[in-house]
Formats: sequence, C-alpha cells, structure tokens
Amino acid sequence: MRCKFCDRPAFIKLHYPKMYLCEEHFKEYFERKVKRTIERYGMLKPDDKVLVVVSGGKDSAVTAHVLKKFGYNIECLHINLGIGEYSETSEIYAKKQCEIIGAPLHIVRVRELLGHGIGEVRTRRPTCSYCGLTKRYIFNKFAYDNGFDVVATGHNLDDEASFIFNNIMNWNTQYLAKQGPVTPSEFNGKLVKKVKPLYEVTEREVVAYALANGIEYKMEECPHAGGATTLEWKAILNEMEEKRPGTKINFVKGYLRKKGLFEAELEEEFKECKVCRMPSSGEVCSFCGFWGLEKPVDFRVKK
Amino acid sequence: MRCKFCDRPAFIKLHYPKMYLCEEHFKEYFERKVKRTIERYGMLKPDDKVLVVVSGGKDSAVTAHVLKKFGYNIECLHINLGIGEYSETSEIYAKKQCEIIGAPLHIVRVRELLGHGIGEVRTRRPTCSYCGLTKRYIFNKFAYDNGFDVVATGHNLDDEASFIFNNIMNWNTQYLAKQGPVTPSEFNGKLVKKVKPLYEVTEREVVAYALANGIEYKMEECPHAGGATTLEWKAILNEMEEKRPGTKINFVKGYLRKKGLFEAELEEEFKECKVCRMPSSGEVCSFCGFWGLEKPVDFRVKK
Repeated sequence: MRCKFCDRPAFIKLHYPKMYLCEEHFKEYFERKVKRTIERYGMLKPDDKVLVVVSGGKDSAVTAHVLKKFGYNIECLHINLGIGEYSETSEIYAKKQCEIIGAPLHIVRVRELLGHGIGEVRTRRPTCSYCGLTKRYIFNKFAYDNGFDVVATGHNLDDEASFIFNNIMNWNTQYLAKQGPVTPSEFNGKLVKKVKPLYEVTEREVVAYALANGIEYKMEECPHAGGATTLEWKAILNEMEEKRPGTKINFVKGYLRKKGLFEAELEEEFKECKVCRMPSSGEVCSFCGFWGLEKPVDFRVKK
Repeated sequence: MRCKFCDRPAFIKLHYPKMYLCEEHFKEYFERKVKRTIERYGMLKPDDKVLVVVSGGKDSAVTAHVLKKFGYNIECLHINLGIGEYSETSEIYAKKQCEIIGAPLHIVRVRELLGHGIGEVRTRRPTCSYCGLTKRYIFNKFAYDNGFDVVATGHNLDDEASFIFNNIMNWNTQYLAKQGPVTPSEFNGKLVKKVKPLYEVTEREVVAYALANGIEYKMEECPHAGGATTLEWKAILNEMEEKRPGTKINFVKGYLRKKGLFEAELEEEFKECKVCRMPSSGEVCSFCGFWGLEKPVDFRVKK
C-alpha cells in the first residue's frame, strides 16, 4: 500500500480515520494532532516553564520529544522509584532521551529521599497505590518548589479510556469528576497545572511515532504491575476499537461532555497538611502521612 | 460432575457462585433467586392483578411460568407486531405457553390496530425505535384500561447490563436515570408500575430453566434486529464475565447504587397528550404522534 498523500510506501495503517501513511506523513499527522490537542484544551502558553515527567517509557519520551520540537521551554524530571534493576535501567533511558533532545534533566530518587524504594515498604496499602500517590506528590511539589507553570505527563488515549472504563465498570464514580486533559492550577498554585498532550493519540500511534523517530525507551512492564486489571480493560477496549474504530476517542470525548454529572460526589473540603503545608483532605496529606515525615521535603534546585 | 446438594449428575455449571447443580436443584435455585428479587425490590403484592407481556420468546415465557407457579394472579398480553411470518409463529408460541400454564391471554395485533405492521411504515425513524415505543405504549395503556396493578416483563440480567453498558459507552446518560428493576406507578396510575422479575438471573440461566421445564419458545431473532449493537455489547460483557465471574451482576448493582447521579438530566415536565390524555413530553405523545392518531386507542376488554 502507498501513502495517502504521496508515492512512498505505507509505514502505518491508521484505523480512525482509516488511511495509510508513509513515515514522513505519519510524523506530520501525529504532530499536528498533538498540537491541536494542546491548543483545543489550552494546555500551554508559549512562554510557560514546562516540567515533563519522564519515566524512561515511550509515552513520556514522546511527550518530551514533541514539546521540545514545538519549541516549548521544557525541563524534565525523572523519579527513580527504587525498584531494583527496573528503576536503574529506567533512569538510564530517561537520561539518554533527554540528552538527545537537549533538555535539562532533574532526578529525584525515592530511596535516597524517603529511605525505602517502592515495594520495600511494609504496609497493607497496595504497591501501585502508594507508588501513584508518591509520584504525583513529588512531581507536583518539585514543580511548585521550582516555579514551573505546568507539568506535562505522557498519558495517552488508551490510558485515559481504560481509566474511565475501569472506574465506570466498578462505579467508582468519585474518581471521574476531575479526570481530563487539563487539571487547572489550584490553591494559590500549590497544585500546579497538569496537562496531557498525548490525550488524543492512541498507544499504537505513540509506539509508531517513537519508532519513526528512533526514540529508544524501556519496554518492560514494572515488576509490580503483574496482572494489573488496567491491562485487561485495555485489551477489551482494543477489541471494541477493532470492531468499531473510533470507540476509544468517542468514549473519552463523551465522558468529557458528561463529567459534570459526577461532580455531585466531590468532597471539596481541603485543608493544609500540617507537615508540608500543601493541600490535603486530612490534617496530614497522604504523602507525608504514608512516609511518616516530620518535615517537608524540599525540592528546590540550587542554581 | 455431581450436584452440589445431592447425588444426581450435574445439569448445569453455574459460574457465580461457582457450583454444579442437578436439574431439580437448579430449578429450586432459580425460583428462589427470582422470589428473592421480587421481594427485595418490592415488585408484587400477593393480590396484585399482574399483566405479563409475552412475546413468544424464552424470557417472557419463563416470567409467566414462574409467576404462575408462585401463585400470582396473572393474565398475559401478546402484541403481534405484524412482522410477517416471524410474528405469526411468535403468536403461536405465546398461545401455547399460556395454555400450558393456564393463564388467560389477550392479543393486540399492531396491523389490525394501526393499519401497518412494524417495518411497514415509511419513516426515517429506525424500526427498532418505533417498535419499542409502540410496544411500551400498548402494554401500558392495555394495563391501564383494564385495571392491572402492575406489568411484568421478561428483561433478564444480560438485557439490563447491556442496556446500561451501551448507554454508558455512548454516554447517553439521559436514559440511565430511570432504568431499574421497578418503575413505580406515576401520573395517577396512567403510567402503570413495571417490574422485571428476572432482573438478577442471566440469560444462560433463563435458557437452562426453560429447558428444565420443557418450555418451548421462539428462538429466531427478529428480522429487523440484524447486526443490532446490543448483541455486540452482550458478547463483550460475556467475555468480561468469563474472565471475572460476577462482572454483570456487580456492574448492574453498582449502577443501581449510583443512578441518582443521572437524575440531574431528567426533564421532568410532563403534559397530557391531547389525543389520548396519557402522559407526554410534548403536546401529542410519541405513540399518537408517530401513528398519526386522531382519537385514542381503547383496549378495554369486553367482559
């Protein structure tokens, strides 16, 4: 098959809209789509100081690559989770990715910072649960401490669709009120604005874009993710997508139109954590509470 | 394999809860489950005059069979949709089913009543859409005109789960506020109470119960249902159910806990249809409007 726009052989077959594209036209298509997402949702202003959270995986690598290419003022943050070998190679990939695009990289290592790596804490809380809260706290606080305007993460359409699908199938509707492509800044900037530039591109498109640009990334799943139900939901969504191309994007866009329905369940009472002074639903925020901190972590980078 | 409760060979393997049952113990299990559903949701009072809508298919046949067996005061209504051969054999099955259980059967024939069968009307409205509104209007008005306390339909767990799933995947949340095992009587009884005794049993269990009781029923799909997306949703739910037994019942029960969220979208302004005086969102109700009626249909049965 040939590219829809030129004579070159097809590099990829897209399903929705259905078309064959060569490598060059696919890159162009992908970048145009991400640019449109950024504009449509008001994600970034030209002079924003942007922190891209890079894990070493494909999604965040592509996010950093594209934002840099678009000329945004980005710096990257890698959080080394302290999950043995897995985290060591993740850090190596993150370094290499940032070096290639010429973006400054900051590294926070969970074990150095908090005494234990993820998976090494004795707790009844599931590992993925405290890993998530730890990462979210660190990148937000890092951005706040260092004056970033916005944090960009690598979430793609499949991530978003499966998150919504999972929470709907289990009717955990309380998680559905605040999900979306942009989370605005709140609490005098203590919650930094978050954006997801890959919100409207599929995982498959991200993989293809990484391939087309020679972006190397860590492919292994986290050893703690074993049998994660997210993967099951993604498989089911992929099956529906195959039968009816457009299922995922239409599902996610429909959700964005209707998510106001779930706001009735929001508990909007926020206090200040008495350890770190960041927004918290209880006396102590879940991060300081979980890690048993007595004074706040300080991420300010010495100049 | 042997029955969980006796020495007889297994007739069915249930998945949730997982157990093998012989024919006798399966019947007992099924009936106990339906009885519990009727009680839990306050569906029927002992002396209610109940109208069971029988299509000739398995679900309504099993509903009539079970309610009769429980000793309820039931009469049946078959709506002949006027879909050629398909409707003729459906009517024959309905007659036979009612004869066997000794329940009075009323028959309303759409073509005789309204001049055209379903599928014979020149309209841009999809056939399944006006078929649905026609059936719902007829069984409600028939029940109202003849003083029934409640209408019982054959909807099973798979029907309910796929209805909710479909409307969530498409975010047609306006249809989700009023769905459930019981729709209470409204508008001075002009909307008659509706109940679904098979709400918590799966399609597979209904088929097995019909088989165990020698209930014969029409198996063909309606010729207009071709490629209906409902069947696709059911297939996907079945696949999820296989991976995680209990998915359907937990999904439906979760929905029932949360459906209040969707009430924000209800448009509760109802008028009286100026043709038939039944509740309507517009000047003329969708039934009288669609069929272009100038006077109301009267279903009163001569005694």
